[in-house]
Amino acid sequence: MANRLESLFSPESIAVVGASRSERKVGWEILHSLLAYRFRGRVYPVNPRAGSIHSIRAYPSVLDIPDPVELAVIVVPSAHVLQVVEEAGTKGIRALIVITSGFSEVGPKGRQLEEKLEGLVRKHGMVMVGPNCMGVINTHSRVQMDATFSPILPLRGNIAFMTQSGALGVAILQQARNRGVGLSKFVSLGNAADVSLHELIEYLEGDDQTDLILLYIESFGQPREFMPIARRVTKGKPILALKSGRTEAGRRAAASHTGALAGPDVGTQALFEQTGVLRANTIAELFDIGAAFSMQPLPQGRRVAVVTNGGGPGIMAMDAIVGVGMEPAVLSDKTTAYLRARIPEEASPVNPVDLIADADAKRYGLAVGAVLKDPNVDALLVISVPPIVEDEVAVARSIWRAAKKQSKPVVSTFLGRGEQSPGVTELVDHSVPTYLFPESAARALAAMRRYQEYLERDEGTYRRFRVRRKRARAIVETAVQERRTRLHEMEALELLRCYGFRIVRSRLVDNLPEAQAAAEEIGYPVAFKAVHPEILHKTDYGAVVLDIRTRQELDDHHRTLSLRLEKEGFEIKEWMVQEYARGGKETIMGMNLDEKFGPMLVFGLGGIYVEVLNDVVFRLTPLTDADALRMVRGIRSYPILEGVRGEPPSDVAGLAESLQRLSQLVQDFPEIEAVDINPYLVFEKGKGCKVVDARILLTPLERGAR
Amino acid sequence: MANRLESLFSPESIAVVGASRSERKVGWEILHSLLAYRFRGRVYPVNPRAGSIHSIRAYPSVLDIPDPVELAVIVVPSAHVLQVVEEAGTKGIRALIVITSGFSEVGPKGRQLEEKLEGLVRKHGMVMVGPNCMGVINTHSRVQMDATFSPILPLRGNIAFMTQSGALGVAILQQARNRGVGLSKFVSLGNAADVSLHELIEYLEGDDQTDLILLYIESFGQPREFMPIARRVTKGKPILALKSGRTEAGRRAAASHTGALAGPDVGTQALFEQTGVLRANTIAELFDIGAAFSMQPLPQGRRVAVVTNGGGPGIMAMDAIVGVGMEPAVLSDKTTAYLRARIPEEASPVNPVDLIADADAKRYGLAVGAVLKDPNVDALLVISVPPIVEDEVAVARSIWRAAKKQSKPVVSTFLGRGEQSPGVTELVDHSVPTYLFPESAARALAAMRRYQEYLERDEGTYRRFRVRRKRARAIVETAVQERRTRLHEMEALELLRCYGFRIVRSRLVDNLPEAQAAAEEIGYPVAFKAVHPEILHKTDYGAVVLDIRTRQELDDHHRTLSLRLEKEGFEIKEWMVQEYARGGKETIMGMNLDEKFGPMLVFGLGGIYVEVLNDVVFRLTPLTDADALRMVRGIRSYPILEGVRGEPPSDVAGLAESLQRLSQLVQDFPEIEAVDINPYLVFEKGKGCKVVDARILLTPLERGAR
Repeated sequence: MANRLESLFSPESIAVVGASRSERKVGWEILHSLLAYRFRGRVYPVNPRAGSIHSIRAYPSVLDIPDPVELAVIVVPSAHVLQVVEEAGTKGIRALIVITSGFSEVGPKGRQLEEKLEGLVRKHGMVMVGPNCMGVINTHSRVQMDATFSPILPLRGNIAFMTQSGALGVAILQQARNRGVGLSKFVSLGNAADVSLHELIEYLEGDDQTDLILLYIESFGQPREFMPIARRVTKGKPILALKSGRTEAGRRAAASHTGALAGPDVGTQALFEQTGVLRANTIAELFDIGAAFSMQPLPQGRRVAVVTNGGGPGIMAMDAIVGVGMEPAVLSDKTTAYLRARIPEEASPVNPVDLIADADAKRYGLAVGAVLKDPNVDALLVISVPPIVEDEVAVARSIWRAAKKQSKPVVSTFLGRGEQSPGVTELVDHSVPTYLFPESAARALAAMRRYQEYLERDEGTYRRFRVRRKRARAIVETAVQERRTRLHEMEALELLRCYGFRIVRSRLVDNLPEAQAAAEEIGYPVAFKAVHPEILHKTDYGAVVLDIRTRQELDDHHRTLSLRLEKEGFEIKEWMVQEYARGGKETIMGMNLDEKFGPMLVFGLGGIYVEVLNDVVFRLTPLTDADALRMVRGIRSYPILEGVRGEPPSDVAGLAESLQRLSQLVQDFPEIEAVDINPYLVFEKGKGCKVVDARILLTPLERGAR
Repeated sequence: MANRLESLFSPESIAVVGASRSERKVGWEILHSLLAYRFRGRVYPVNPRAGSIHSIRAYPSVLDIPDPVELAVIVVPSAHVLQVVEEAGTKGIRALIVITSGFSEVGPKGRQLEEKLEGLVRKHGMVMVGPNCMGVINTHSRVQMDATFSPILPLRGNIAFMTQSGALGVAILQQARNRGVGLSKFVSLGNAADVSLHELIEYLEGDDQTDLILLYIESFGQPREFMPIARRVTKGKPILALKSGRTEAGRRAAASHTGALAGPDVGTQALFEQTGVLRANTIAELFDIGAAFSMQPLPQGRRVAVVTNGGGPGIMAMDAIVGVGMEPAVLSDKTTAYLRARIPEEASPVNPVDLIADADAKRYGLAVGAVLKDPNVDALLVISVPPIVEDEVAVARSIWRAAKKQSKPVVSTFLGRGEQSPGVTELVDHSVPTYLFPESAARALAAMRRYQEYLERDEGTYRRFRVRRKRARAIVETAVQERRTRLHEMEALELLRCYGFRIVRSRLVDNLPEAQAAAEEIGYPVAFKAVHPEILHKTDYGAVVLDIRTRQELDDHHRTLSLRLEKEGFEIKEWMVQEYARGGKETIMGMNLDEKFGPMLVFGLGGIYVEVLNDVVFRLTPLTDADALRMVRGIRSYPILEGVRGEPPSDVAGLAESLQRLSQLVQDFPEIEAVDINPYLVFEKGKGCKVVDARILLTPLERGAR
């Protein structure tokens, strides 16, 4: 069966409903774009009051068109959209692009209208992009459809661009044109009432005109549906995304703008990390990186060489290369000797190779060729600063010719030149991306390298552990029946034990004599904690004493703790005596349920330092074994777990397994709203981990099961 | 007395020595630039083989010129430079711009030549820019001197640009021209054999044509001379600098390129922080920020409003604003009500103010005016995305007109437009800086705000403490006489005590019975450490036991420690017994002597977390009291010192005073090469700090005193 999006992207015939005779109106621009870009099929203007538009016979309604129509672009006022769609369905039109705005983006009334629209589309089995969008482009030579109101015609290329912001759409198309970046498809999603982002991505996966997918996203519709699709697609085609609304302030704007509750950025970050979607921070970056991907092969390593005709720019380029996490290549002796024999004495034959100011096309050609041949070089950045002898086209030509002979990526910077300067055009026309400044070039190389590493990385497998699920179910159900939203201290530990977590030896006791007995049984040193339903974070109340070595110390601490907490209004009726495990490192492990992203796992080292420095990693469930390991390795302070200052390495594998077990637990029990294992002690490699304290919250009943 | 640089910047007459008849040669370009930019004085080409150049009579040598000459631009080959300079001196020429390369940048031979050149210049009392530079520009209407080989003529403006890289010079001039950024002066410093960066900055301080100084720096000549000058100048005129060679790789390149040993970046960072020099990371940033400074007033706060005609760009702008550390403005009810009554229903009257796609000039004008009037707004970012109705000049006009009525900074983004688009030109011509993307606009506002905060910040005073300097001198001299490069354990503590540091009670003992007695005297709990000349970092060897609470524990640890260290080859003959101070937080404080920057102080929290996360702050000496306080507050983990989770705040004032005492110590004793106080315990506010362990190294005698 043909994909239902075919009628959208490659229709035989198009009706423009709401086509207008007045220039500068959207209804005119769309028709104009279709004609100016020379759509290969037939176009029918529809307008009740016009006999002809753009010299083409117009019809009062789609029902009056004597021939079959495959796609309708709708630009009538929102009050008329439903009628037009009903007629389109009756006519047998397969696909709709609804440009008209005034739907869910404007409030509850608009939302109702959009729901009716969706219903009609579904009733007639049609496919719809929009409403509130700026159109669709397919540059395929057999189609040539520019069904947008952008005045800029696209260049043909291998990049598909999907945008959630119509306002940015025109700017994006202008940027692409200015930079010589060619598109295969362009879709402005609008409110995405029918065709969603992940459906488009799945379609583009199979589109042989598209090598690279660029996204501008303001809000994920269904991140959990996006995840498996993106994880698969990115292994074949890179997806590069700009997600805005990443900061709190931006998010408030996103919420009011698109009518969608934008998720917090940690969710997006986790989603991108787990699916291999590359993130751009700005539109400029999106194009900087996109251009490199679309024109150049991926680097097989991180070692970057620079060829320049100015020392200063060479230094700046090296700064930039190191700054983005790439490495300066160390040229082989052979290359250095070859260059030394052929470039002036004042020039530098080591990286950055400085050909000095008077470098001509020949010198550039031989240097670029020699450096690219060097097995110590994975990628090349070529810089040209304005020489006195202005022969930039010849220099550009010798650069792309030498680049073409190799399968290593070459990017370039013509410093101080504009995008339209002849050398820049010469390079871009021959697939060498050119940037105004070396920082952008370095960033593009780094993104390509990250993608190559992602292609090589093991995605791992989803493990399922044998657990005592029945017992766990009983614990959770008891709490639910008692309408509790929090498990008791010992229940929480027990639930974790059911899922294979080890717990430090712990005794809940009522008084000092019992505590003394428990301490003897567990063996000194012990930890001693006051338990009270209103004390959630014990350390905040100073309700924890660690490393108690004798009964005398236990007695003393029991007395002072009771007195102090009583003064603060807490009568302590229960105490926890626990084994005080030396030699373990404190970590924290947990889960928080996100409205949009579902269960989100968190991991970090414990202690106030890390809390203040916010050194934690978030990931979405389900988690593969490889995801779990990368999660542990993802914290900045990971070297501490590897062992610094002669310390033995910690049991990283144990931590990774624990994260997978936690993932299984929260997938099995959607009632769980939050898990906080803190501290979770990790011991030396091979010696596992132990839960010291855990807090588990359940969703209140009135919010119901998810 | 007139400044000696006057002859350089405002000469009455110029000789171009090495002027050439061949177009595209440097000697031709310079003469051409002088004529094309219409130098107001007289120009004399000098060339032994040409009768006239550019239709001007040429002379075989400067000595043949019948009139007085104030400035000579020298472009002859390096072999002839000395003769030409000698003749220039004889002729009474006051200033030289030596374009010729082949001096210290090419190695030892060139360095010798440069020294001779310097000698000649000094002998004749001349002033020289270069050698190996690309020239000097003064756009003053009474001078109009473009003495560079750049083919681009400058625009007149209020920015002075100094660059150490000649190669970047042309690119910089092209960028400035493309962006409509006007210059007052431009100097390519070259090898700076005579006129140095700080001399130029001092000159520009008094130059009423210059409001803002932009620098491209590869290496500081004398950072310690730069410091006091920059600290003074920046309080009147902003200095914005791009320092390259900031990463290791870049630094290697800098060293080989300029022949100067580039300092590590921490020194630069400290220098900029202490002098208020604003740092740009890229050339693009330098211009982005420079344009805003040169055209707009400084913001009086961090609250930024956005006016846009597209929702997506508004969200991106908010992300950018928060990302650079500014705050989204919350519009007053009055402003919101005013806007709501005047903009369409679908538009948004709160920040970001979204005027929707069809916003015309009138709507922009009223929104910009209203938002700028709002007392809750400190700065404004206006965005325009391409509307269907292309009337961008009218929109631009209404923006700058509304902006002119206020004294708050306004920056703008015409998304998707090129630098030459008519709306952009309209804005820039009327002093509203315009950026391709909102990120650059936000960055510019943030830099202006940082500068305003710097203007308001208290620079503090240099305190001198009463110390026991004589006793300290005796300790250092004993070590120097014994040819030691390291103070003994107790000497180091004593030296610090002389400068007012408190030390934890410490006893150096020879055996267990002495240790027992010391522990009783100090009082349990104690810390117990093995002392051995080959054990530099005790914790690395596990040679430290903390929190010993009983004599039994002391005996046990003495036994196990002796045995283990003996196995590792250390016979322990000395032990340290110290008070184990509870409730203190570990910090580290120290000094390292940098070849370029001199004594560099360092401060951070202790513990392995912070070490792994590299959370330390460096500062140059001397340190004001305000510098010291900012240094302590500068670490990322500073909230820990303020007290988190109900903990009391630490004695931050005590730490700041300690840093000033350390500054005084290392200034008093240039023999000291490194100080490492680790851990330095800080107690609750008002309770001071205590040294636990200190290591002090002296410069080896053969390297001599500095």
